[in-house]
Amino acid sequence: MTPDQREKERSVAALVAPDILDLLETEPAAIPLETEELHPADLADVLELLPRELMPKLLGALPRERAASVLEYVADDVRSALLEEMDAEQAAALLTGMTPDERADALEEMDEEAADEILEELPDRERAETERLLQYEPDTAGGLMTTQFVAVSDQETVDQALLTIRAMARAGRREAMGTVYAVDARGALTGVLSLRELLAAPEGAKLAEVAWTEVVTVPATADREEVANLTSNYDLVAVPVVDEQQRLVGVVTVDDVIDVIQEEQTEDVQKFGGLEALEEPYLQSGLLELLKKRAGWLTILFVGEMFTAGAMGYFEDEIAHAVVLALFVPLIISSGGNSGSQATSLIIRAMALQEVRLGDWWRVIGREFLAGLSLGAILGVLGVVRVIGWQELGLYDYGPHFVRVALTVGISLVGVVTFGTLTGSMLPFALRRAGFDPASASAPFVATLVDVTGLVIYFSVALTLLRGTLL
Amino acid sequence: MTPDQREKERSVAALVAPDILDLLETEPAAIPLETEELHPADLADVLELLPRELMPKLLGALPRERAASVLEYVADDVRSALLEEMDAEQAAALLTGMTPDERADALEEMDEEAADEILEELPDRERAETERLLQYEPDTAGGLMTTQFVAVSDQETVDQALLTIRAMARAGRREAMGTVYAVDARGALTGVLSLRELLAAPEGAKLAEVAWTEVVTVPATADREEVANLTSNYDLVAVPVVDEQQRLVGVVTVDDVIDVIQEEQTEDVQKFGGLEALEEPYLQSGLLELLKKRAGWLTILFVGEMFTAGAMGYFEDEIAHAVVLALFVPLIISSGGNSGSQATSLIIRAMALQEVRLGDWWRVIGREFLAGLSLGAILGVLGVVRVIGWQELGLYDYGPHFVRVALTVGISLVGVVTFGTLTGSMLPFALRRAGFDPASASAPFVATLVDVTGLVIYFSVALTLLRGTLL
Repeated sequence: MTPDQREKERSVAALVAPDILDLLETEPAAIPLETEELHPADLADVLELLPRELMPKLLGALPRERAASVLEYVADDVRSALLEEMDAEQAAALLTGMTPDERADALEEMDEEAADEILEELPDRERAETERLLQYEPDTAGGLMTTQFVAVSDQETVDQALLTIRAMARAGRREAMGTVYAVDARGALTGVLSLRELLAAPEGAKLAEVAWTEVVTVPATADREEVANLTSNYDLVAVPVVDEQQRLVGVVTVDDVIDVIQEEQTEDVQKFGGLEALEEPYLQSGLLELLKKRAGWLTILFVGEMFTAGAMGYFEDEIAHAVVLALFVPLIISSGGNSGSQATSLIIRAMALQEVRLGDWWRVIGREFLAGLSLGAILGVLGVVRVIGWQELGLYDYGPHFVRVALTVGISLVGVVTFGTLTGSMLPFALRRAGFDPASASAPFVATLVDVTGLVIYFSVALTLLRGTLL
Repeated sequence: MTPDQREKERSVAALVAPDILDLLETEPAAIPLETEELHPADLADVLELLPRELMPKLLGALPRERAASVLEYVADDVRSALLEEMDAEQAAALLTGMTPDERADALEEMDEEAADEILEELPDRERAETERLLQYEPDTAGGLMTTQFVAVSDQETVDQALLTIRAMARAGRREAMGTVYAVDARGALTGVLSLRELLAAPEGAKLAEVAWTEVVTVPATADREEVANLTSNYDLVAVPVVDEQQRLVGVVTVDDVIDVIQEEQTEDVQKFGGLEALEEPYLQSGLLELLKKRAGWLTILFVGEMFTAGAMGYFEDEIAHAVVLALFVPLIISSGGNSGSQATSLIIRAMALQEVRLGDWWRVIGREFLAGLSLGAILGVLGVVRVIGWQELGLYDYGPHFVRVALTVGISLVGVVTFGTLTGSMLPFALRRAGFDPASASAPFVATLVDVTGLVIYFSVALTLLRGTLL
């Protein structure tokens, strides 16, 4: 985000909303024409900026098909609330105009009873289509896919196929139409080509001869993350979803994949920050919801941190003898946490992008050991300079044994940073090995693990170096 | 990432690589046919799995056009190394087969001298095209765009346009062909429609009549993040790039946008972990590179943490009088850091998704104040229970004034967690306001800010509650 983007923060929607608000109150009939040039996504933003009670009025002022496209871009919670308020027939009419995957998503998020009522009111074809989509878990390929795609017999010629597609397109199919899927007599997927490639192919050739046979497919039960990885690795604009017989049952389009990538990323960042992932955007989440997602981990971390009180208690005598030791406790343990947080963020991201796999742990541990040792050496030297420097400059009196204190701090830092780096880099591997999400290795989690051990390292070094002098 | 994905970690490439290795040694001429069914992305993965010296051999064994598509998927550093090793003529032949944007990217990453030599060897048209693309900064719309797109006069009829496109497709244009751009006599973009919509449109209609006029465009200088946001908000598969006269100069395709989204997310996670973003994938980054990106922030944070030593020194007398106070220092300051890390991760992610804008700070501060107070209360009660519980159970002796110590811990936790939450949530706003990247508000950064203040809060509460007893 660059600073000048701040200037652009006033969106199209924010600029247009006041005019539309005016029109809604004075001349709602003019709205379709006045908003004709607006992208449905912008009109959806406008709708979200309106006072809650005016939202249905704006939808009502638009032609039904237009209202349906706008609804596709409205935030989930607003959309389900709006649809639940309408009578079922009206809602069904709007949903009929939406793409099958968005329609299913909208129903999924609604109160079940309301959704069932609306489902009853859908035309037969749309109802069957929607019920089929609703069978799949939302986080799977089946839950993401649309059933509007172009499948053509691989025995058709290029020209026949173009005619078929033209007819389909004129019948109003809207999605996943840039890619043409060739199927055999059983309906099994045998090839794929883009509409552009179809146009380029010799008119009389059969699809079976011109389509690419190297088709990337997923089963309907595939995790959405897998769909996202395939899209990104193979530069796809649509991923075909097949059943056990390789029959095409749907297509996941790239716009939904981008949403998945962003949602997964949001979850990962929130987990890394040390909380459970939110289900709604931050400002739309209720305070209670926010607290629920945060209190759990915060409490677990707190209980983990209680061991620091135990560890400190164990060394209480040493602290009482040499209070100077207590002064560096926060500095030393936080350095372990910081270096651990760095290592963890590197590894969980590399895992998410599949750059690092479970079997790479031994390569990682070698690198991170060296990295930790080097970073620890840098901080160790700084620590020694800090203690001796302050003493020599007369800024603080660390007592007659200040050189030994300085060495204690320096050596502890090498140990703590190395340990922090290793813990931070290995924790995601351990979590994943145990079947957990490596992204649960949050910065606070690593810091907590490292704090207790950091104290033990520090006081052990102190006991060794200061015995007979301060201790 | 689900546990069963671990099972799938053995990729297509890993399964095929040994066979191809065999073939390379025994019968390289068979490779084109044997690998025909492989997606170029998989073949690129195979190439990356081969011993370094065999990589050129695999490329050489493939037909030139196939080798060019494979190179489009090869990791940046491997690709530039391979091209630099070839003689310029050979490299130019391969680059000619690549899409214009990938070709420019490949040259951008190479040693400048080698790139210039190769550029000289390109055919005139490709050279001019590439030189034009190389003018743009890599992180801008211009740096991402391809120059292979379909622009048709808006005065052509649908049928004429289809013929034009067919000719273009047959001439071998490969990219950004799913969308048709309508331009006026000056070359200015006047409309857009998908190839599917073109097929659906009445044959005799002029493009100007059937194209959508609500076109989303970006200037070539637009930041890549802006391009990504537009693609995601408007569900685009291609973003047209225009000059000052609204003339179409290129198109950014969605596969590049997905790469941008993932790179930006990687940067954000790494920054949030408290290091500078890496330029290469983790395992491809040299150790020295890794250290450079980490040592800077780690040192800055360390210097920041030094203030804790100062703060602790300021309260040295109090600690000497009541060593028990020192025992809870790590517990209390880490709770502030953890709650701050939670708040920061929520806000920087909401900002990245544009859910929260600069002007929302007052809404956020209100929510976070309440959240911090509530979370602080939970931990505060736990803290009090911990101290009194351990004392009553005889697990530790906190002295005769243990109830006051418990209250000190509890009240400090409320203060520190509230302060941590507020700092964590406001820091991204402050950074952004000052023109910095809000993602620089890393977990360790917040923890460091909160540690010093946490100590001051804790000891101030102690001074108030324990004066006359322990202090």
